[in-house]
Amino acid sequence: MRFHTRKWVKPGDMNPNRTLFGGRLLEWIDEECALYSIIQLENPKTVTKFMSEIDFRSSAKEGDIVEIGIEVVKFGRASLTLQCEVRNKMTRETIITIDKIVMVSLDENGKPKPHGKTKIEFVKDRLEK
Amino acid sequence: MRFHTRKWVKPGDMNPNRTLFGGRLLEWIDEECALYSIIQLENPKTVTKFMSEIDFRSSAKEGDIVEIGIEVVKFGRASLTLQCEVRNKMTRETIITIDKIVMVSLDENGKPKPHGKTKIEFVKDRLEK
Amino acid sequence: MRFHTRKWVKPGDMNPNRTLFGGRLLEWIDEECALYSIIQLENPKTVTKFMSEIDFRSSAKEGDIVEIGIEVVKFGRASLTLQCEVRNKMTRETIITIDKIVMVSLDENGKPKPHGKTKIEFVKDRLEK
Amino acid sequence: MRFHTRKWVKPGDMNPNRTLFGGRLLEWIDEECALYSIIQLENPKTVTKFMSEIDFRSSAKEGDIVEIGIEVVKFGRASLTLQCEVRNKMTRETIITIDKIVMVSLDENGKPKPHGKTKIEFVKDRLEK
Amino acid sequence: MRFHTRKWVKPGDMNPNRTLFGGRLLEWIDEECALYSIIQLENPKTVTKFMSEIDFRSSAKEGDIVEIGIEVVKFGRASLTLQCEVRNKMTRETIITIDKIVMVSLDENGKPKPHGKTKIEFVKDRLEK
Amino acid sequence: MRFHTRKWVKPGDMNPNRTLFGGRLLEWIDEECALYSIIQLENPKTVTKFMSEIDFRSSAKEGDIVEIGIEVVKFGRASLTLQCEVRNKMTRETIITIDKIVMVSLDENGKPKPHGKTKIEFVKDRLEK
Repeated sequence: MRFHTRKWVKPGDMNPNRTLFGGRLLEWIDEECALYSIIQLENPKTVTKFMSEIDFRSSAKEGDIVEIGIEVVKFGRASLTLQCEVRNKMTRETIITIDKIVMVSLDENGKPKPHGKTKIEFVKDRLEK
Repeated sequence: MRFHTRKWVKPGDMNPNRTLFGGRLLEWIDEECALYSIIQLENPKTVTKFMSEIDFRSSAKEGDIVEIGIEVVKFGRASLTLQCEVRNKMTRETIITIDKIVMVSLDENGKPKPHGKTKIEFVKDRLEK
Repeated sequence: MRFHTRKWVKPGDMNPNRTLFGGRLLEWIDEECALYSIIQLENPKTVTKFMSEIDFRSSAKEGDIVEIGIEVVKFGRASLTLQCEVRNKMTRETIITIDKIVMVSLDENGKPKPHGKTKIEFVKDRLEK
Repeated sequence: MRFHTRKWVKPGDMNPNRTLFGGRLLEWIDEECALYSIIQLENPKTVTKFMSEIDFRSSAKEGDIVEIGIEVVKFGRASLTLQCEVRNKMTRETIITIDKIVMVSLDENGKPKPHGKTKIEFVKDRLEK
Repeated sequence: MRFHTRKWVKPGDMNPNRTLFGGRLLEWIDEECALYSIIQLENPKTVTKFMSEIDFRSSAKEGDIVEIGIEVVKFGRASLTLQCEVRNKMTRETIITIDKIVMVSLDENGKPKPHGKTKIEFVKDRLEK
Repeated sequence: MRFHTRKWVKPGDMNPNRTLFGGRLLEWIDEECALYSIIQLENPKTVTKFMSEIDFRSSAKEGDIVEIGIEVVKFGRASLTLQCEVRNKMTRETIITIDKIVMVSLDENGKPKPHGKTKIEFVKDRLEK
């Protein structure tokens, strides 16, 4: 799994119990899945369709740095299935895992649109063509 | 299912495709589950432990009003299992459903703490005692 | 008065004195009045025109849960007058009251537009027609 | 009346009708009154106690610049009464006016605390003493 | 230098070390420069093009009030060069200084557009004409 | 230069001209530099002390994905000097560059504190020791 985006857990991200607010964490994950899919499918109109079970294994405290990892599980016809893990950057302890997040590529009318992709591509390689 | 909290979908809640940002929706749901559990378990230190599959059935657009419904599935020893549905207030169309959200009551040291509750209580009744 | 929307007072809602920031409370009230009026008047273009005196009777602290209650005072020709109370969910202590909030229904050009409503309607009943 | 703080009306400040969200405006006013009072009373623990009628005379649109004016109405024993006007910086058209906003200086226990001030002071003069 | 906009340093503006988050300060400065330039150049399409060295001389803590000062350095053909200082309102201690911020006036196509201004103007004088 | 954190440019990140708000971009850069330094110096109390000239070469529009790159320029005694570039993920076009950002490691009293580091370390290697 490749970990890219990192977040610094700031006061505005906390719940009143002074641990990382779970809703904020889900927001970060959803954004990361969306932008990862947009990059891979080259279609900005890509939306979250499904998430499998979410297990909150541990939390984070103010000042912690978390990193969000994404791995491709499967390229569908109009969909892309991802796996996600968020972990503490300093200890590598897992905070949350989601086995299956289905993103769907849409056309102008909001209908599923085949994306024609079958494997991970790197922007670098696309630009070099 | 009882629907309480309502949200007005404002510009800052949108994704770049101009539909409601899924991450924001998950944030709203997590907050609603947390506060519902805190009210029922009378313990402010109540956290999200698990969410079952999330199906994004439809979205919402700018200016829509959504309402968040919660129903208790089960009272555990230190946990409370909830079911959640978010729907469009005007059409009652379902936006998202989550069958099982497990909230856990914690003690000072972050360990599960039995809450002693077995059924839904209304604050009104508690205060009248 | 019916209380619907609930808010969990989080770190980002506090003022530097560590009580609920009054500006945040007013923001929550204004949003609740707007969405309540939009539901009743069935016109998304409904705006706040006037608020009567606001008495900040008590405050809230981090982790408190507040609920916002709205009651209709009067249906005007293009307006809807509401009464609002915000209270602490756990103690039912009043935080703020506003006797009269005038919302106005507007047409495309921003001019008052008669809404034709004379009494509270429930979305359930509208949909069953 | 002296106008200090200016705000640039950005996308995140709009309501779904694409005019300035009234709740945001009230939040800005409350913050300005708080900081103005803290400066005058030299007590960081100064809170909003009362606002008289609020008349929303006009609105603002995205990209507008608004400025917030404050004037002292009266120095009480533990209170400070302010008047507030928000206007469009470019046209000087009034957006909102509030005749009377009562701010109260509190002690450590949240009780009103006499501030000993009877007239407007400028920080410059205080520092030169 | 004239100091206008004031900010109250609130919990959501802090970094995890409990001092004012530098990124928030830069955001405030950029907004102030933008709105100052829009007022002077009478063109809402004015953007930040360049900032010279930024020296973080001191920080601010929760509850502090900071004020942002702007001074015009030079009117260019399509640009406006500003100088900026942020200081603590109560002690007048400097928090940050930036000697040169170049703002550029753009036309509909995003190309530099001569603004025809050569000196500071006051809105009051414009309106009285 | 290694690019890690990615951001999806959402409606709330825009200025009224509908390009990415420069202040938001500076906020993202400052957060990235802070967390990068905290990871390297293993001291959570690391703050931004200086930024060299900032050149806004191009902007981003709603829906764009930007990535933030950091490179170490120099390890000082209590400082770490970084170089930063933000670019559009899809086109690799540069949006902003900053040649020199000086971060300083502080002790409990806010005084510079030698960090003892002389080269980039990877968390993976630290954990394997």
